[in-house]
Amino acid sequence: MGVYEFKAGRHFLVRVPKGAELVGFITELIRRRNIRQGEISAIGAVADAAIGFYDQQTHEYHEVELTGGLEIVSLTGNISLKDGIPHAHMHVGLADHSGAMFGGHLSRATVFLTEIVIHEFLGIEKKELERLPDESTGLSCWPA
Amino acid sequence: MGVYEFKAGRHFLVRVPKGAELVGFITELIRRRNIRQGEISAIGAVADAAIGFYDQQTHEYHEVELTGGLEIVSLTGNISLKDGIPHAHMHVGLADHSGAMFGGHLSRATVFLTEIVIHEFLGIEKKELERLPDESTGLSCWPA
Amino acid sequence: MGVYEFKAGRHFLVRVPKGAELVGFITELIRRRNIRQGEISAIGAVADAAIGFYDQQTHEYHEVELTGGLEIVSLTGNISLKDGIPHAHMHVGLADHSGAMFGGHLSRATVFLTEIVIHEFLGIEKKELERLPDESTGLSCWPA
Repeated sequence: MGVYEFKAGRHFLVRVPKGAELVGFITELIRRRNIRQGEISAIGAVADAAIGFYDQQTHEYHEVELTGGLEIVSLTGNISLKDGIPHAHMHVGLADHSGAMFGGHLSRATVFLTEIVIHEFLGIEKKELERLPDESTGLSCWPA
Repeated sequence: MGVYEFKAGRHFLVRVPKGAELVGFITELIRRRNIRQGEISAIGAVADAAIGFYDQQTHEYHEVELTGGLEIVSLTGNISLKDGIPHAHMHVGLADHSGAMFGGHLSRATVFLTEIVIHEFLGIEKKELERLPDESTGLSCWPA
Repeated sequence: MGVYEFKAGRHFLVRVPKGAELVGFITELIRRRNIRQGEISAIGAVADAAIGFYDQQTHEYHEVELTGGLEIVSLTGNISLKDGIPHAHMHVGLADHSGAMFGGHLSRATVFLTEIVIHEFLGIEKKELERLPDESTGLSCWPA
């Protein structure tokens, strides 16, 4: 059924420093703190970002580069294992100075200020959730 | 005051399979697992979707149909009871291949890949939260 | 490192009444209920709103006024202390009748209907998280 149940773990608020690369920062954080499953959200602002759109026919990512300073209107994501180590999958909605929004898969961003909330999920009886290659999408997915 | 307090229940990560209708899938899931109050968020991609805008003057929903493959930039919602059974109210922000975003009430979507996080809330002393007809908005709402 | 750990506190679902000013309502709620750290999300609709864009060079906020009825596609934020009392920092994505989205820092909004989820975070050994003036951004921030 693709439905995985967990119990609550730790809860974090995180300030990301100016100049950090956001995806790398989060990846390092969840690996160092060993956050193996969970939920992530954030707000703030970035100097620039690359967001991805996945072509559902060709199974290829296309990236859009955004510059000029952008508000993080929403950053929504989850944490699970990939190749045995913690991996964050995140989508982001960004706004420019006029309020116009652009969004997609968060590939890369240079932080101006980012405030993150993380809820850790712990496996019941230590069961863990790992991404595996998925033929139907061409992506690494939780088993359906 | 319209402020309802709960204690934490179960926590779920859910993979929705390709081709599923997202609103129906979530509705069936929360009813089968008896998730009566809670919070829901998701990311992923859909093949198409219908999003609603509620006219605050006429009290009518207008729907916009989107096709061509869209990223789910954010899906934010809550779970409570309606007519005595679990009901999810969800809004969604979607992005097309250029990153341009469209959003509103999630009426319907055909899943390409969707990853959901659910936090269950349990009523203190078994108190439950039910939507009731609300004159000020013309919608089913939690009592204010 | 700017990483602050908490334990889970109370969980709330909140209906905001029609006509309320959303930022003021939330501020009053978290102060009255003494929610000192936490996460906040919401969906719904507003009659109008003011959203802010922070100029990363000049360190000034620019506001965009939106009217005509808007769906709250996402409202994402956090709660921590500022000047010793609870303070909510929230970003919002809004959609007009065509589904087109606008987003930024939530400065002000007149509620039509808003449904909020709050997760309270409690300090471990009563440690609290307070915003302090931050030179690198010109904002009040959690120490990095």
